[in-house]
Amino acid sequence: MGDNIDVLVHEVGPRDGLQSIKTIFPTQAKLDWIKSEAAAGVPQIQVGSFVRPDLLPQMADTAEVVRQSLEIPDLTVAVLVPNLKGAQNAILSGAHQIGVVMSVSQAHNKSNINRTIAESLEDFRKIIEYRNQVDPERKTVISGGLATSFGCTISGPAPVRDVMWQAEQLLKLGADRLSIADTVGFANPRQVKDLFDELYRTIGKDVPVGAHFHDTRGLGLANAFAALEAGVRELDSCLGGLGGCPYAPGASGNIVTEDLVFMLESGGMKTGIDLDALMETRELMIHHLNGEPTQGTFVTAGPPLGFVAASNAA
Amino acid sequence: MGDNIDVLVHEVGPRDGLQSIKTIFPTQAKLDWIKSEAAAGVPQIQVGSFVRPDLLPQMADTAEVVRQSLEIPDLTVAVLVPNLKGAQNAILSGAHQIGVVMSVSQAHNKSNINRTIAESLEDFRKIIEYRNQVDPERKTVISGGLATSFGCTISGPAPVRDVMWQAEQLLKLGADRLSIADTVGFANPRQVKDLFDELYRTIGKDVPVGAHFHDTRGLGLANAFAALEAGVRELDSCLGGLGGCPYAPGASGNIVTEDLVFMLESGGMKTGIDLDALMETRELMIHHLNGEPTQGTFVTAGPPLGFVAASNAA
Repeated sequence: MGDNIDVLVHEVGPRDGLQSIKTIFPTQAKLDWIKSEAAAGVPQIQVGSFVRPDLLPQMADTAEVVRQSLEIPDLTVAVLVPNLKGAQNAILSGAHQIGVVMSVSQAHNKSNINRTIAESLEDFRKIIEYRNQVDPERKTVISGGLATSFGCTISGPAPVRDVMWQAEQLLKLGADRLSIADTVGFANPRQVKDLFDELYRTIGKDVPVGAHFHDTRGLGLANAFAALEAGVRELDSCLGGLGGCPYAPGASGNIVTEDLVFMLESGGMKTGIDLDALMETRELMIHHLNGEPTQGTFVTAGPPLGFVAASNAA
Repeated sequence: MGDNIDVLVHEVGPRDGLQSIKTIFPTQAKLDWIKSEAAAGVPQIQVGSFVRPDLLPQMADTAEVVRQSLEIPDLTVAVLVPNLKGAQNAILSGAHQIGVVMSVSQAHNKSNINRTIAESLEDFRKIIEYRNQVDPERKTVISGGLATSFGCTISGPAPVRDVMWQAEQLLKLGADRLSIADTVGFANPRQVKDLFDELYRTIGKDVPVGAHFHDTRGLGLANAFAALEAGVRELDSCLGGLGGCPYAPGASGNIVTEDLVFMLESGGMKTGIDLDALMETRELMIHHLNGEPTQGTFVTAGPPLGFVAASNAA
């Protein structure tokens, strides 16, 4: 994280947003978005996922998007993968950071990526092994992602001990960092604060930990604030809250990047992001949406009178 | 506050909601709403305001609404007043709690109620004097309300020292409690946590303090959580987030009662409110709205699988 940044905002729209909507963005539209948002100061963007193109045609061009994104100065290029095959492709693509996702719920993991948790952990071991083999300097960051850490639509509440156990397993297997996700918008801020307090107590304060929230029940930014209060300094979000209707059963839109940046900057936390430029990126992104809905309040309410972004403060 | 309640939810819809929309609710419609919401377990409702009826015709029947609301068992009947005259009428009406509102910003106070802050404080002194005279047992609770405590559309940011000074003045003059309001939705959760921390440091922990948030920039529930983290245990909210478009310049919809109750109950804080019954009240209220918009996410997303309200937990 740069010296001038207090919180790392990790844009996941070109992956989590685009995989949840009908419109398929052409490669060039994705790259225009990514380049524009990077130029606005967003330090890390999840540009796609390495999955079977017949399952997610929106992500079929991920290798090419990664290749061109790697040319953008100062941008950390991140991708998501569900399994060993995807991770191998991601490592070969040269992406800077690879999020390997598995669920805390056995049933959700089976349903989502057709693996038991044991199989996913064995995959993760092989992914680290593969990374260490082809990338002996271990420059490619492998992030252990725990989906449904706050509950899911199949198993209901997620026991905190299950999250802790799985986090410990991932770190033992060599994860460079962790990502804790409220995949389907079940979390409340009390739960978020308590879970991250317990996580830091369990794994210590030295492991970088990111948080990923959806706004299904209107608590996305409250949850983000609770995570910040617990000490989290990396947050996923999506420009325009892309990801379709926030009321769909199951997964729905991520927290809105521009609203998150406003919350952080108005609260004195530097993101390094220029809000005006970010809003221009939003317009550029919306241009390709074919009228599909976006979310967000900052776009309409604007900044309060006298607002000074922390990143612009003297 | 009852033994079985951790947080007091103070419904302000029949005042703050109804004064901000076009539809004028008939007296009976207000009372149906109030009775239904009280039956759902909401312990305190702001049923109206004593203001000049030519300025706010929606509130012209407040004395009658108070009279009938006082017959509802276990309900704390609250009203809002802008000045001495209103407070006198409110005290005579028998309302249990009277919120006397003034702004932290001199310019906003002049614009809103045509008084300097000094004049409003002198009003407040006379209000306490009047209460003590006609109600020697001081059963009528007088709440000192600080509008625009987080900034306003005329003066911009509100200096924390101004809020502290005014809070101290109100307590010296005899306020039984305080209400700190983000009248126009300027607050961010860091600011909220810091302001309430400073307030409790300044006035001590023994004075009851309520918080009032608007959701103009999507941070309403994040601000509510920040206030809870600082120790606030009384929160204003409005069923259906009534108050029109959240993006109007200036004041906009309050935080949504049902979303707030969900946040509290899912986080283990008892409100004594039955969410199912509350949603029925919402339907009843909407019936009178003539299609004016409401807000809220709980109404569409529903509770997450396995949700147990704290108030219903064993």
